[in-house]
Amino acid sequence: MSEQRIKMVLEYDGTNYSGWQRQLNAMSVQQRLEEALFRLTGENISVTGSSRTDAGVHAKGQTVHFDMHTPIPPAKVAFAVNTRLPSDIRAVASCQVAGGANGFHARFDATGKVYRYVMYNAPHASALSRNYTMHVIPPLDAERMNTEAQSLLGRHDFCAFAASGSAAKSTVRDMFRISVQRRGPCVILLVHGGGFLYNMVRILAGTLAEVGAGKRPSGAIKRAIATGDRLELGITAPPQGLTLMRVFYGDDMQSGSLFDASDFIF
Amino acid sequence: MSEQRIKMVLEYDGTNYSGWQRQLNAMSVQQRLEEALFRLTGENISVTGSSRTDAGVHAKGQTVHFDMHTPIPPAKVAFAVNTRLPSDIRAVASCQVAGGANGFHARFDATGKVYRYVMYNAPHASALSRNYTMHVIPPLDAERMNTEAQSLLGRHDFCAFAASGSAAKSTVRDMFRISVQRRGPCVILLVHGGGFLYNMVRILAGTLAEVGAGKRPSGAIKRAIATGDRLELGITAPPQGLTLMRVFYGDDMQSGSLFDASDFIF
Repeated sequence: MSEQRIKMVLEYDGTNYSGWQRQLNAMSVQQRLEEALFRLTGENISVTGSSRTDAGVHAKGQTVHFDMHTPIPPAKVAFAVNTRLPSDIRAVASCQVAGGANGFHARFDATGKVYRYVMYNAPHASALSRNYTMHVIPPLDAERMNTEAQSLLGRHDFCAFAASGSAAKSTVRDMFRISVQRRGPCVILLVHGGGFLYNMVRILAGTLAEVGAGKRPSGAIKRAIATGDRLELGITAPPQGLTLMRVFYGDDMQSGSLFDASDFIF
Repeated sequence: MSEQRIKMVLEYDGTNYSGWQRQLNAMSVQQRLEEALFRLTGENISVTGSSRTDAGVHAKGQTVHFDMHTPIPPAKVAFAVNTRLPSDIRAVASCQVAGGANGFHARFDATGKVYRYVMYNAPHASALSRNYTMHVIPPLDAERMNTEAQSLLGRHDFCAFAASGSAAKSTVRDMFRISVQRRGPCVILLVHGGGFLYNMVRILAGTLAEVGAGKRPSGAIKRAIATGDRLELGITAPPQGLTLMRVFYGDDMQSGSLFDASDFIF
């Protein structure tokens, strides 16, 4: 049987996982997916993901690739693997891509990613969205947050946003689109960049929450980019508000509206 | 200490409960709330809810009443009880109401309720909304469903919608407002009525899904109301798509827009 490389898009609820990446003594999404592929094909298939989402972080559009010999039609792989996955992980699409050493690579070929961070802004926490939002008690000024967030746009050295101990060689990244909007009790941050440093979106969300609550002066992001000073920024917001919405490849990175209704229904 | 009657609004994720009502050998929302009130006050407090939501059904606006002697300021009761509740149950508001035999009663005084039913309409199920939606694979025509649903409006005998074995004395109910709208992959039914028969909203949702998928001819609801024939209607949709959004009392039952953004963010 000849080998085929599959690109697959995954949705998952990160609540019960230690994150995307396989590790000892804790259950990861990657391990669950590799186990499902083994049960489906009998092959030991190693999966590469576009992004190493942390424990508790969710995905609507995590994108992965892997090679398989079992002759399942590429578009049917998502359906087949779902029969072996738990219900908190779903394959939502699959197709064949170029294989081999110069073939498609889910991580190296990504040209952009969209992340969402949702804050639940009310005096009491939400029972229904407790695993999908950060609870923020003081009233947030979403318009002020949106204005503040626009300072990210363009190519900048985001070293102030890098979690201590992260190993990225360069901390320069491109930010293409960003928006903060209120929807009822929720304040929703959407950000589209060429790539993100470890914890960058969570530090951004924590900073915007402080600016929106009036606890940190406007201009903090501009100053942090200029000075590289982590202390200009706010707390690292908790993981459960974060969702990897989409990974772009090739020329499609600017397509579509950043913010549409489907972006905030789970 | 004098007795005070408290009206309280609750949000809960019904996934891990046997429903609202206390029962032997299974954990209910009512039991969790009564336990929290006991731990808070040392009093054996019995709670009355507006609606007996089923296992797996959620609430954003379940409304309850109870009498307590402990002198907590009425508006603070919600905050205090939250310190004793698990995170999948949250009190969102509390106030004092008239007590005694002729005082406020959460069930008997309700003048209207709004329920939401959410369908996730896509080839693959959703990992993130698996506990909050019914998965429907065939494409749904939401406009056709909305037109079909309008036949419910007004005062009718809804005996065709009554689950077999339900004990309601009368099956006449008033329906005030109803809408079916698409939001991305979700199709959202919102219905506001004076009261609902057991399983009525789930039978309605199951019927509308069949009409929307073209598996049942339009006019089914009108015929079911005219004939009382349960066979005109579709399946009873599963519980996890259903949320009790709001309970109205007194004159406020027509206030506000039925469908706004906050109605469909968890």
